[in-house]
Amino acid sequence: MNSIHKLAEFFAEFPGIGPRQSKRFVYFLLTRNNGFLEEFSKLILKLKQEINVCSSCFRFFPKNHSDSKKCNTCNNKNRDISSLMVISRDVDFENIEKTHFYNGLYFILGGSIPILEKEPETKIRQKELLNRVEKAEGLKEIILATNLNPEGENTAEYIEKILIPLVQSKGFKISHLGKGLSTGTELEYSDTDTIKNALKNRN
Amino acid sequence: MNSIHKLAEFFAEFPGIGPRQSKRFVYFLLTRNNGFLEEFSKLILKLKQEINVCSSCFRFFPKNHSDSKKCNTCNNKNRDISSLMVISRDVDFENIEKTHFYNGLYFILGGSIPILEKEPETKIRQKELLNRVEKAEGLKEIILATNLNPEGENTAEYIEKILIPLVQSKGFKISHLGKGLSTGTELEYSDTDTIKNALKNRN
Amino acid sequence: MNSIHKLAEFFAEFPGIGPRQSKRFVYFLLTRNNGFLEEFSKLILKLKQEINVCSSCFRFFPKNHSDSKKCNTCNNKNRDISSLMVISRDVDFENIEKTHFYNGLYFILGGSIPILEKEPETKIRQKELLNRVEKAEGLKEIILATNLNPEGENTAEYIEKILIPLVQSKGFKISHLGKGLSTGTELEYSDTDTIKNALKNRN
Amino acid sequence: MNSIHKLAEFFAEFPGIGPRQSKRFVYFLLTRNNGFLEEFSKLILKLKQEINVCSSCFRFFPKNHSDSKKCNTCNNKNRDISSLMVISRDVDFENIEKTHFYNGLYFILGGSIPILEKEPETKIRQKELLNRVEKAEGLKEIILATNLNPEGENTAEYIEKILIPLVQSKGFKISHLGKGLSTGTELEYSDTDTIKNALKNRN
Repeated sequence: MNSIHKLAEFFAEFPGIGPRQSKRFVYFLLTRNNGFLEEFSKLILKLKQEINVCSSCFRFFPKNHSDSKKCNTCNNKNRDISSLMVISRDVDFENIEKTHFYNGLYFILGGSIPILEKEPETKIRQKELLNRVEKAEGLKEIILATNLNPEGENTAEYIEKILIPLVQSKGFKISHLGKGLSTGTELEYSDTDTIKNALKNRN
Repeated sequence: MNSIHKLAEFFAEFPGIGPRQSKRFVYFLLTRNNGFLEEFSKLILKLKQEINVCSSCFRFFPKNHSDSKKCNTCNNKNRDISSLMVISRDVDFENIEKTHFYNGLYFILGGSIPILEKEPETKIRQKELLNRVEKAEGLKEIILATNLNPEGENTAEYIEKILIPLVQSKGFKISHLGKGLSTGTELEYSDTDTIKNALKNRN
Repeated sequence: MNSIHKLAEFFAEFPGIGPRQSKRFVYFLLTRNNGFLEEFSKLILKLKQEINVCSSCFRFFPKNHSDSKKCNTCNNKNRDISSLMVISRDVDFENIEKTHFYNGLYFILGGSIPILEKEPETKIRQKELLNRVEKAEGLKEIILATNLNPEGENTAEYIEKILIPLVQSKGFKISHLGKGLSTGTELEYSDTDTIKNALKNRN
Repeated sequence: MNSIHKLAEFFAEFPGIGPRQSKRFVYFLLTRNNGFLEEFSKLILKLKQEINVCSSCFRFFPKNHSDSKKCNTCNNKNRDISSLMVISRDVDFENIEKTHFYNGLYFILGGSIPILEKEPETKIRQKELLNRVEKAEGLKEIILATNLNPEGENTAEYIEKILIPLVQSKGFKISHLGKGLSTGTELEYSDTDTIKNALKNRN
């Protein structure tokens, strides 16, 4: 197998990329100059050396001079430590931060739990989450912010179950993202659950 | 212009139907037997004679023997008269009823108010709504259930404004459908407003 | 069942219309004035009285004063009687005429033959087609213009088979619409058959 | 700017990749093990060293032991040198080869010429094409196989114009991919040009 095919196979593993687009990627690279390829290649090689996993929220973050084991969000004294939002992935973190609406801390599960999964503890950072919550000081609220689809709701239910034993001893409450009408929703085309939630959560 | 074109022009006025599909409709009718066409034609001709507009909620409803001026929802003694949901169209009524979650009454605006509309009072049943609310007994809540898009939100704002003078004298509160994550929402693909709403309305 | 539901059921039989849109159609009609409904209803009722099926091409056409049994295309002395295009439906006729490129005559099959159909002769106007071809004078070419999908190709193959016995006695040839690149086609996204046809039919 | 953002910016230049997906790619890479990243990085770095541009058809091809300057297609004695297909990109080559229907040679333009482009000669390998054709022996046909969209047709017209002076001296003809119905085409939904082409090229 030649380099074009080999590289195309790597791209074909990328999320959302099929065999046709992976080929296009390789041909695209072939039309770039050497500088582009060298820098691109170097960035990939050094990616992990320059990125740490935060010891507190398990988010990927760029290493800095102080060589802290915590990301800048977890290190930020202005963030509200009484609130912890549990999310599935790093991209969710970015999307939520973009709203500038939440000032608490995060915990990244690193995945979600499919319906009927037999070993749910292998799909998410369960031990790390329990550890993080046990050691938390001043924690008043854990927000379960998983996707509102079957896998996301299954994940939230599972986490709620494993957190229950800690609720009283630690004195926090568990909350969920509000369900209702998303931006752009038309009632005529809404499913029954969404309308129910919108009625239940009217304000 | 021949009958095929004339009839196609009628179909072309139907919501969501373009010139091509309107022609297909005519050719479809041409392949039906006479019985189909006769009954179909009769139903259209008699439609308005057999359907009333409810004098209370302004919903279309089939006439019945008692010849009531109110629809069976407004006439239903088991519905909760303390709650009134204001919606844009009859189809919204059907979709909300399908949830079997709401037991109050309705008011159908018959439209919505576009952004920057100069004569909003001509776009909805404004006088009828004010009249309905003024005469209401035991009313505790008006739910503004318009679409969560610019036109729907504009409509809700306008109605809230015209209802304000009645809030104290009549002693009801105004509520809105809950905003947040719709069924199927993934955080990664959610817009900023939806995430904000989901955080604000967490529970 | 009330008039709204009854009428919605009629609309739900229309090509491409689901239960939700059929309801929207009824509510749309309810907002029209009586004049609209009366004329619309009358057009439907009289549709078949004012439309004939052409005795030659089997196309629907509006009756005219001369009360001819043939449509104006078949009656048109300027059309080229040496060419007969066999198509599935009236809408195909309209779409082909719009190109102003073909000046021959037509024959409308009234349908197409699904793959593995056991009674193909019941799906199209087989007897009428054979009769039309047998009586044709000066016929030099029959163009099989069915869709380029499995059902359309199956139909063309079947018709070719039943026409073969007439080819020599009547002295016409059978042709097919050209296969190749449709407007807008990009080679990168083309299927193998389309590229093969485009190569085979290069010119 | 940190490594995550830097790498995301590289991915954002890839064909068809927006800012959101480019981020997902980086996070995907962060979850891969070091072996994956090292091999992936190395393949990118060495890509150009292992891939040549064919001196005859200008296709990218993997270097081989013989260190030939021609790709294996141009070197293949069994290919028919009397036929040359002019295409825009390497992906078109792959798609056409997949049909196993064409046994001639290729020339890759490396691009196409937008409508109204003022410097068309900078958008394609014009000089190289003319050179290739001038030196060709036994050439009988040049197939212009560009996309059937405005840019592709503009490119074909331009190439035809610059090739005309060579047609007589070299004794080849210029042909174009056949236009007509692509696989899956329904007449009812076809544009006028496609139907015209299908009629013109009937067979």
